[in-house]
Amino acid sequence: MASDYYSKQISNLIAEFSRLPGIGEKTAQRLAFHVLHMPIEDVKRFSDTLTKAREQVRYCSVCCTLTDREVCPVCDDQKRDHKQIMVVEDSRDMAAYEKTHKYGGVYHVLHGAISPMQGIGPADIRLKELMVRLQGDVDEVIIATNSSLEGETTAMYIAKLIKPTGIKTTRIASGVPVGGELEYIDEVTLLRALDGRTEL
Amino acid sequence: MASDYYSKQISNLIAEFSRLPGIGEKTAQRLAFHVLHMPIEDVKRFSDTLTKAREQVRYCSVCCTLTDREVCPVCDDQKRDHKQIMVVEDSRDMAAYEKTHKYGGVYHVLHGAISPMQGIGPADIRLKELMVRLQGDVDEVIIATNSSLEGETTAMYIAKLIKPTGIKTTRIASGVPVGGELEYIDEVTLLRALDGRTEL
Repeated sequence: MASDYYSKQISNLIAEFSRLPGIGEKTAQRLAFHVLHMPIEDVKRFSDTLTKAREQVRYCSVCCTLTDREVCPVCDDQKRDHKQIMVVEDSRDMAAYEKTHKYGGVYHVLHGAISPMQGIGPADIRLKELMVRLQGDVDEVIIATNSSLEGETTAMYIAKLIKPTGIKTTRIASGVPVGGELEYIDEVTLLRALDGRTEL
Repeated sequence: MASDYYSKQISNLIAEFSRLPGIGEKTAQRLAFHVLHMPIEDVKRFSDTLTKAREQVRYCSVCCTLTDREVCPVCDDQKRDHKQIMVVEDSRDMAAYEKTHKYGGVYHVLHGAISPMQGIGPADIRLKELMVRLQGDVDEVIIATNSSLEGETTAMYIAKLIKPTGIKTTRIASGVPVGGELEYIDEVTLLRALDGRTEL
């Protein structure tokens, strides 16, 4: 470890940054030295924000997204269609759909996807909470888990789980991204797009 | 900003990560959500490390490197040759040479390089401190600033500054990196390597 060549406080700081996902030793060093050159008030604000966010952020009691309120702003918005629930893997996916400004329903955040490889089973994601919500008045469940192996597995599992309730369950379309050039797109996506073709 | 779609504490956390160099909006979101899922004790330790490092780390009173002591371990090591001073741009460059375990002299850390483009002049780097050290018993100053425009400018400037003292001043060699394949190396480096050729 390069951090052995620094004094203890600096090594500790590098080590903390290295623990973050996708941050290698070199980047951790760069970030640590940046912090050491930052005005002390800025470092204190950063440090406070970390603990405050972690302490105050919790799961929305309705949709399970990460928020700093008991009920998140989306679930609290009476203008939205609470009978349409989009199921996503995490809060970032929810933010991605919110950015479109076109979806008027609400969400349910699973915080993960079923992955036997990683030992993540149905009980490890927020499925129980979803099933409780479905006992209320729900018209449609839109499954918007990722188009990955785990995302598809999760989608299938949820669809099977919802089936007995008779609630309409849909899956977002999978295909060629808008602006995507066919020649650069993988075969699986191309076939998926073909299967999902719609009449013009 | 995507962070508009998150609650305040989460947006603040994303904003703090975005302020770090080389961290874009997407990476900042990823890091923020990682922190929100970390055990609270780990977040507190990270947060403490940030402020503690920033508060306790200072410049070595001899070589100006960042350290948590009055005099850094290298400057404090009596087995090293204190008459040989390697001048580097920052503490990371010093760590890079320390990792070789072959350099037995000491260092002087400038904390930057002269860059008229960025408005960084000779007074903005730790040159005055170097000149003070040179009033002592010094045999050689090895200039190991980067092989960039700024690094070279700084090297020239320092060499001119030291000249009147009569102290031997050297510059680390510039050329083809070990293991480097000529065909992938830029022309300037190739010419530099040619100019710096040594007899076998």
